[in-house]
Amino acid sequence: MSSYYVGIDLGGTTVKLGLFSDVGELLDKWEIPTRKEDDGKHILPDIVESIEEKMSSYDGHIKGIGMGLPGPVTEDGVVKGCVNLGWGTFDVKNELASLTGVGNIKVGNDANVAALGEIWKGGGRGFDSIVMVTIGTGVGGGIIQHGKIVSGSSGAAGEIGHMKVKPGAPEVCGCGGHGCLECYTSATGIARMAKGGVVETKNTLAGSYLEGKEITAKDVFDGAKENDAYCLEIVENFGYLMGVGLANIASVVDPEAFVIGGGVSKAGQMVIDAIENNYNDNVMNALKNKQFRLAELGNDAGIYGAVRQVLICR
Amino acid sequence: MSSYYVGIDLGGTTVKLGLFSDVGELLDKWEIPTRKEDDGKHILPDIVESIEEKMSSYDGHIKGIGMGLPGPVTEDGVVKGCVNLGWGTFDVKNELASLTGVGNIKVGNDANVAALGEIWKGGGRGFDSIVMVTIGTGVGGGIIQHGKIVSGSSGAAGEIGHMKVKPGAPEVCGCGGHGCLECYTSATGIARMAKGGVVETKNTLAGSYLEGKEITAKDVFDGAKENDAYCLEIVENFGYLMGVGLANIASVVDPEAFVIGGGVSKAGQMVIDAIENNYNDNVMNALKNKQFRLAELGNDAGIYGAVRQVLICR
Repeated sequence: MSSYYVGIDLGGTTVKLGLFSDVGELLDKWEIPTRKEDDGKHILPDIVESIEEKMSSYDGHIKGIGMGLPGPVTEDGVVKGCVNLGWGTFDVKNELASLTGVGNIKVGNDANVAALGEIWKGGGRGFDSIVMVTIGTGVGGGIIQHGKIVSGSSGAAGEIGHMKVKPGAPEVCGCGGHGCLECYTSATGIARMAKGGVVETKNTLAGSYLEGKEITAKDVFDGAKENDAYCLEIVENFGYLMGVGLANIASVVDPEAFVIGGGVSKAGQMVIDAIENNYNDNVMNALKNKQFRLAELGNDAGIYGAVRQVLICR
Repeated sequence: MSSYYVGIDLGGTTVKLGLFSDVGELLDKWEIPTRKEDDGKHILPDIVESIEEKMSSYDGHIKGIGMGLPGPVTEDGVVKGCVNLGWGTFDVKNELASLTGVGNIKVGNDANVAALGEIWKGGGRGFDSIVMVTIGTGVGGGIIQHGKIVSGSSGAAGEIGHMKVKPGAPEVCGCGGHGCLECYTSATGIARMAKGGVVETKNTLAGSYLEGKEITAKDVFDGAKENDAYCLEIVENFGYLMGVGLANIASVVDPEAFVIGGGVSKAGQMVIDAIENNYNDNVMNALKNKQFRLAELGNDAGIYGAVRQVLICR
């Protein structure tokens, strides 16, 4: 009878699941919806039922379960409130253990878990310590030291989107603060910066914007790739503030490499170039010339990292 | 025959040494000058000779040696250039091992080692993770997670004095960067801020400054304690920028507590108050209400932390 491991990427809309062999090979992956009604009390039972159903076609038993979820999680697997799932303070690890009978369970924050996935099988392969930056609707971070997640005393390590890169600036962040990294460098932030001055320009974005079309971060990078001066300026602003943010992070944890993921990273090498130059301009000598990599696992980073928490292999 | 441990705090002018019992009791402490001539090649032999001399009055042998020194050190004890000591790249751990015959040797950065001392026997007692901030001529930092130093991939973790709290500001730091935390919140930075506008004020500092007396950070805190409006304003600026800096650090490593040491911390609770309020105003909810403590070990933090690297006991 074989041993299997399950990696779970629990999101606000969808639960992604992966079944792994005991040498870390992804055998099967599937999704179920996240049922958030009734304070999210169906979420874990739904997951367990789905795993049991999947296992009916495999001869073996589950030896470990790893999970990532969208909120701060302590190292003991306790969530201290997760509005995206309807949960208050909740001992997720113990609950999963009692529902499944599996002893080897680890629960982490989704951004941290994705970072663990990338250092194991993705853009961070070969490094011992990375900072992964996920640039999507917001900006998330995951800190890995010696191959392990740094989760922090309350599970909120790596919340780098809320680092102040423009202290006291007028821009208000979703966290209630001002001048957070996320205000300028998330997909939303890039689009907002672009909308700010676009009408005065005479480029194609301005035309379609005046006709009522939204501007996205992708539009900005696409324009920059065609050498549109205004788009290049926005990309440079993005790169400057992200470069300053990563320089500040390096002064705290001094990683070997930065891995850049999330939707905005699909713009590719231009994103790295914009950040890397500004990073080197804003960091002290001892911390210059770190490695910069694009994330490689896309939406699978979560299930890989989740299972990596419980599956120690190369 | 008893076992002893040695903690060494190697500074640019003086080497502080401490002899400890195997339960971590400080039995003896002494100092020798740091001989930096000839590219610092006398420093380690001088230290070893001094330890041997000291041990002639003790019946027993040295079981472990820990050292802190003023530069980046990798976890294997390799220094990558330390101008303060005249050293280039140098395997300090191996050299100390071959000079002494002791196998259990650890070498760390002085700010990191001081943080380890404070969490063991000082202001950080009882916590599992702290960030120690040393506010002196410069601003240094030490990150402790799960009771251990986070040294970073090149030994430069905790170099928080060079975090940008005013990116692009005109003030130039010793590191060559602009707007570093250290430019405003070190003793030097506080004095510089105070000198900047003092002539327009009519307080006592302005009078003595015009007569040629230097203004120190201590003068500023002393004035603030007597409710001088200008000094209170400088203290508030200091607290604001340090609060922002510590909020940024928390967003990376989420410690349980901050421990504030160095010469400026001698101003006491006023320093904590100035920082703590601004920290809470500038950090996201999940990271609010951390503990703030004054360092307690003063100049002995270095020898305590140094020995703690090799002496695991409670």
